[in-house]
Amino acid sequence: MGFRHTETVRFGHVDGAGIVFHPRYCEWVNNTIEAWFSDGIGYSFTDLHLRDGHAIPLLESHYAFRKASRLGDVLTFTLTVTEMKRATFDVRIVCTGPEGDERMSADIRMVHVRLEPMKSADIPDWLRAKMEAFRAAPRD
Amino acid sequence: MGFRHTETVRFGHVDGAGIVFHPRYCEWVNNTIEAWFSDGIGYSFTDLHLRDGHAIPLLESHYAFRKASRLGDVLTFTLTVTEMKRATFDVRIVCTGPEGDERMSADIRMVHVRLEPMKSADIPDWLRAKMEAFRAAPRD
Amino acid sequence: MGFRHTETVRFGHVDGAGIVFHPRYCEWVNNTIEAWFSDGIGYSFTDLHLRDGHAIPLLESHYAFRKASRLGDVLTFTLTVTEMKRATFDVRIVCTGPEGDERMSADIRMVHVRLEPMKSADIPDWLRAKMEAFRAAPRD
Amino acid sequence: MGFRHTETVRFGHVDGAGIVFHPRYCEWVNNTIEAWFSDGIGYSFTDLHLRDGHAIPLLESHYAFRKASRLGDVLTFTLTVTEMKRATFDVRIVCTGPEGDERMSADIRMVHVRLEPMKSADIPDWLRAKMEAFRAAPRD
Repeated sequence: MGFRHTETVRFGHVDGAGIVFHPRYCEWVNNTIEAWFSDGIGYSFTDLHLRDGHAIPLLESHYAFRKASRLGDVLTFTLTVTEMKRATFDVRIVCTGPEGDERMSADIRMVHVRLEPMKSADIPDWLRAKMEAFRAAPRD
Repeated sequence: MGFRHTETVRFGHVDGAGIVFHPRYCEWVNNTIEAWFSDGIGYSFTDLHLRDGHAIPLLESHYAFRKASRLGDVLTFTLTVTEMKRATFDVRIVCTGPEGDERMSADIRMVHVRLEPMKSADIPDWLRAKMEAFRAAPRD
Repeated sequence: MGFRHTETVRFGHVDGAGIVFHPRYCEWVNNTIEAWFSDGIGYSFTDLHLRDGHAIPLLESHYAFRKASRLGDVLTFTLTVTEMKRATFDVRIVCTGPEGDERMSADIRMVHVRLEPMKSADIPDWLRAKMEAFRAAPRD
Repeated sequence: MGFRHTETVRFGHVDGAGIVFHPRYCEWVNNTIEAWFSDGIGYSFTDLHLRDGHAIPLLESHYAFRKASRLGDVLTFTLTVTEMKRATFDVRIVCTGPEGDERMSADIRMVHVRLEPMKSADIPDWLRAKMEAFRAAPRD
């Protein structure tokens, strides 16, 4: 089952060609992951970073842009977990337009780290269990 | 004597109406202050924040937008100090286009603070002396 | 009666000092105005700009920053109309934190323009009437 | 031969963990491509978009993040062309820190389009020749 997050295309998201400026998708992908941690998993970035001194920086990201989005579009971002290892994990985020048409997909690999000093740290079991609930169904 | 900083209007700075999206000016004003500290005063934000545990948050800002800027314009931001008190100080930043025509001006009031806990702190004399070198001339 | 818009402080809104980077408020102010037009007045920026060839650029903005906001804070932006002239109008936007404490206020003067060529244009009566519904109460 | 572009890590580029927020790299990649067109190829985005009614939206992008960047770092982005087809082309952008250490690399596929209506358009020969000058050397 995926986690859903929505964003509205605002004036400042659109570039000189009248379509969404691609780095805005990178911010929305980040917002989706942040909302997933907070509202899906129940572990806010405030707790993760400021209380626990951890972070989940990106190792790799791959974006495929299918169709342009325009001012006023309400976009839905659906996140599923596609892989989990000891400290790293992969998520796939698919962005769809108001008609359900795919606009973009992103495959993101992240790593759970301790911040001081920055060093990878195994994902604790309680967190792993909560993340697994968003695992993509087989052949999803 | 003013401190000068330049920015080029890039694709992502321009909004759906083809002109610079006003929050981009707020970022450029911030970049100008940051470049002034680093290259004009010789006290980088890295040293100010990370080494010394201080910051200079904004108390107030006033922007007047005179003329729209467009993709590709090279903009010049000229900063002068207009007021200095014990912990607070004012700067004026005027943005001009390639022909020297005024596009925007900003009057910014900032306060020198200690970060933990956040509390105003007198501007040290050595820093004050360096900042005064950028004081606007009388009737400037 | 004011129009309300909310924003959550995300990771990318916070700067190296751990507090909201001030240009993010400028974007949220813009988002509030955009949401007000779309959801409060019922005249989307898409219709305003792309269908009707109009825009409402800023002439002036004044921000007062009262208290720092931090990661995870849910901020409420309440917009009221404070002045209306033939083509220009003023709004006040007050940002409050989760406890209702004031974080920032912004006074914004905008002008209704035709885009090609850019020239001020009287606010039509039907739009004026809808905007007036968000007029601040006397002594508000 | 690669095209070089530099960016300084400013306060607003750094997130709550004190390191560059990954969507900022996406903007810098865009700035690098824009500077390459303007200063490397001699065909500004203003001419491309506004005069000629064309654009070069992204089809795909892949980012690999190697090492965190911090406030004040001066980053160098070096762009080479890795593939050219009729309307699409690939560039590789490698970001290095002050010591020449790799921070990030991006592989970007773009397509040359006509804007109204949006439709792929062959890259004209004069433009292709100029782009080829930035082709990566064999085994680069």
